[in-house]
Amino acid sequence: MNNKSQSKNKRGNTVIKTKLTINQERLEERMESLSLIGKFGETGVCRLALSEEYKEGIELVREWMDEAGLKTRTDNFGNLIGRLEGKNPEAPILMLGSHLDSQPTGGRFDGPIGVLGGLEVVETLQENSIQPEQPIEVMAFCDEEGYRFGIGLFGSRGISGQLQEDELNRADADGVTRRDALDAFGADPDALQSSEYPEGSIAAYIEMHIEQGPVLETEEEPIGIVTGISGPLWLTVELTGQGGHAGTVPMALRKDALVGASKVIAGLNEIVKQDPDAPTVGTVGNLTVEPNARAVVPEKVTFTVDLRDINLERRNRYEKQLRYYIKSVAEENRLEVDIKEDSNISPEACSENILDIMREESKTMGIYQIPELTSGAFHDALPMAKSSEIAMLFVRSKDGISHDPREFSTYDDIAVGTELLYKTTLSMIKKY
Amino acid sequence: MNNKSQSKNKRGNTVIKTKLTINQERLEERMESLSLIGKFGETGVCRLALSEEYKEGIELVREWMDEAGLKTRTDNFGNLIGRLEGKNPEAPILMLGSHLDSQPTGGRFDGPIGVLGGLEVVETLQENSIQPEQPIEVMAFCDEEGYRFGIGLFGSRGISGQLQEDELNRADADGVTRRDALDAFGADPDALQSSEYPEGSIAAYIEMHIEQGPVLETEEEPIGIVTGISGPLWLTVELTGQGGHAGTVPMALRKDALVGASKVIAGLNEIVKQDPDAPTVGTVGNLTVEPNARAVVPEKVTFTVDLRDINLERRNRYEKQLRYYIKSVAEENRLEVDIKEDSNISPEACSENILDIMREESKTMGIYQIPELTSGAFHDALPMAKSSEIAMLFVRSKDGISHDPREFSTYDDIAVGTELLYKTTLSMIKKY
Repeated sequence: MNNKSQSKNKRGNTVIKTKLTINQERLEERMESLSLIGKFGETGVCRLALSEEYKEGIELVREWMDEAGLKTRTDNFGNLIGRLEGKNPEAPILMLGSHLDSQPTGGRFDGPIGVLGGLEVVETLQENSIQPEQPIEVMAFCDEEGYRFGIGLFGSRGISGQLQEDELNRADADGVTRRDALDAFGADPDALQSSEYPEGSIAAYIEMHIEQGPVLETEEEPIGIVTGISGPLWLTVELTGQGGHAGTVPMALRKDALVGASKVIAGLNEIVKQDPDAPTVGTVGNLTVEPNARAVVPEKVTFTVDLRDINLERRNRYEKQLRYYIKSVAEENRLEVDIKEDSNISPEACSENILDIMREESKTMGIYQIPELTSGAFHDALPMAKSSEIAMLFVRSKDGISHDPREFSTYDDIAVGTELLYKTTLSMIKKY
Repeated sequence: MNNKSQSKNKRGNTVIKTKLTINQERLEERMESLSLIGKFGETGVCRLALSEEYKEGIELVREWMDEAGLKTRTDNFGNLIGRLEGKNPEAPILMLGSHLDSQPTGGRFDGPIGVLGGLEVVETLQENSIQPEQPIEVMAFCDEEGYRFGIGLFGSRGISGQLQEDELNRADADGVTRRDALDAFGADPDALQSSEYPEGSIAAYIEMHIEQGPVLETEEEPIGIVTGISGPLWLTVELTGQGGHAGTVPMALRKDALVGASKVIAGLNEIVKQDPDAPTVGTVGNLTVEPNARAVVPEKVTFTVDLRDINLERRNRYEKQLRYYIKSVAEENRLEVDIKEDSNISPEACSENILDIMREESKTMGIYQIPELTSGAFHDALPMAKSSEIAMLFVRSKDGISHDPREFSTYDDIAVGTELLYKTTLSMIKKY
C-alpha cells in the first residue's frame, strides 16, 4: 500500500493517483523469487514448458496460491489452477491469468505478471473479506510460448477444446514428445478431455501481460487496454530451383532459389505496408538456404511467413496478394513453389462490456483517457475467446523488447496494471 | 588406340577423325581405379585435401608415374610431382596437371582428368621414344577445392609464392590446422619456401579440366579451349538491424536485416545482368539469419557475394555499383553494414601462343573450329599465370553439373581432350 507521487503525462493522465489496494511489495517479492527459477545471466529466464524449471516454477506459485487459501490443482494439459470458491460454485467462472513458461532466452515478465497479478487480485479480495458470487480461478496456462514443440497456446487451447490431432506426438529438439513430457510432469496425456471446461462454464478471462511493443512507452503511459488480438497466419514457403557452380552457370540459365526468395521477402514488405495506418505486420523470420555454399547457386530456399492483422478481411486480402506474387516470382525465375499453412488463427475482439468497465475503473485511478491498442502478439486470451468473453491489459515494455533478457517493465507500472485488474474484477463480481 | 566413328556436329566439326595416339583404355582404367578412393554412393567421391583418402589417391597415382618412368616426389605443399627429365634439365619446365582433391560430395572427374590426362601425355611421349629438350612435370596440385580450410588453390599458390600470411593456422571443422594436416601427410610445413619454384623456371602450365558449365553440351562439342579465367571477388556482407516481436513491432519502426539483405540480393542480380552479352556472374550462395526464428524480426543477416568476370574493369565497375547499392539499402532500412573482402583474384588471360597451337592442332583432329570459352570457375591455372604462360582445355560436362556425384564426362570426350593435350605438348616441345 504505497504512496505514489503524482505526475502528469502527455495525455494529462495523472499516472498514479491514490493509494494502491493491491500489495505491490508482495507482488514484487514474488516476481523476484520466480525469476530465479530458470535464471541465466543477470536477467535472463529459460523456463521451457514442462521442463524441470517449469515444474519448479509451478510448485512455487502453487505454494503461494495455497497460502492465499485457494484450492489448487494441475490439470492434464500441465496448467496450474488456483480456485477461489464462489458463493455459487456452479456460476460461470471468472478467470484471471497468463503463463509461466518462457522462451529459451526469455525474460522475467512475459507471462508471470498475469499469473502473479491475478493471484494478487484474489488475495486482495480475500484480505478485504470479499467472497464473490462466482468462482474465480487464477490460471497459469501451460506452454503459451510454443518453443519446445513448435506450437503454442497449448493449455488455453486445451481447456477450450481446440487441440489439433496428433499434437501429443510432436517432439522437441531432444526427441521427447509432448506425451512423454506431460507424463513426466505428472499429467495424464490419455485423459486430456477430462480437463476440458464444459461450454458455458467460463464467464470471462482477463489477462494482464507486458505489451512486447513500443506503443505505451512512446505514449508515456504505464498501462493500456486491448481492444483485440491479431490472429497470425503462418506459412512455410519452399522454393526449389537448380544448383550449379557460381562461376560457370550463366545468369540467363540460372534457377536461383534465393533470388526468388529475396523478391518475395521484399514484396511481402511492400504488401503489408500498403495502408500505412493499418496495424498489419508481415515478417519472414526464418530462412534456410540449401546447399548454402559460397560458390554454389542456391538450389532450395525455405522460409516462414508471419502475417498478422486485427482485420481478418484485410489479412485475407493481403494473403491472396502474397500468394499471387509468390506464384509470379516463381514463374519468372523458373522455380517450383510449395506453400504450407502451418497456422491460421482468426483475430478476436475483446469484450466491449469489460472494456467499458476498464475505461471507467481506470478513471478512478486518475487515468482519464486510458490508451487502447491492439495486440499483435497472440496470448492465451486468443483461444479463450472461443469459450468466454476476453479482456486484456498491457503494461509498458522498455524499448518494446520481449523474448529477451533485456525485457523490462517497472514494478510501479505492473502495480498500476494489477490495481486496474483488481478494480475491474471487483466491478465484475459486483455486477453478478 | 581406338577407331572412332565419325559424326558431324552443329559447327561441322567431325568430332573424332583419326586414331588416337594416346591410350584411351589405360586412361579409362586409371580414372575408374582412382574413383574408388573416397567413393560414396554409386558415383560420388569425397577425397578432401590431405585426408587419408587424398594420401591414398596420391600414392596410387605416384605408382603409375613411377611405372611410366617419371621421377616422383611430393613437396611441402602436399603436391605430387612426376618429372620426365629433359635433355636440358635446366630448361624452363613444361607443366601439365590439375588436382586430385575433391569437394565433400564431389564427383569423379573434377581434377583427375587433368592429372591422369597429363600423365597419359607423358607416357605416350615415352612410348614414342620422344625425349623433350625441356623437363615436363605432371602436377597434382594439393587442395585446389579449398573446402577443408576455407581457401583453395593451395598447392599452385604455394609453388608460385602466393600464400597469404597465417594460412597454416587455418583449421578445418574438426579443429585440425593446415599445419597439422601437412605434417600428418608427411610434408614439412616449416620448409614451404624450399618447395617454391624460382622465377622463370616454369615455361608454361597447361591444364585439362571438365567444363563445369553447360556451354560445350549446348554446342554439342566434346572439348573447347579457354581464352581466360574469371577472377572471383568474394565479399562477406553483414547487415545489422534490430530484432523484435514479429507481431508487435509496427512496420514503420522496424529495422529488418533480412528485408535489407533481400533487396541487395535482388539488386546484385540486376547489376550483373545489365549487359546480357557479358559473361559476368554474381551469386549470393551462403546466407544466415539471426536469430532465425519464425516470430522474431531478423536482427542480423550475413551473406556472401561471389562476383566474377573475365573483364576486370567491368567487374570493378559492378563491384562499385553493388557497394553503393548496399549502402543505400542500409540507409533506407536503417541497418548497419559491414563488408569484408575475403578474396579478390584478378582474371587472367590464357597464352595466345598456346591458344594458337591448340587451334592448329585441333584442326588435325577434325575439329576445324574449336569452341573458345572463358572459365567462370577458377583453376590452378589462375595462380600459375603469375609465374608462367598458362593454357586450359575443357571437356564437356553433362548438364553442366560439377561438385556433385552426378558430375559426368564421357571417356570418349576425355580422350579427345587428352589427344589435343598430347598434340599441343608435342608441338610445344618441338618449338623449343
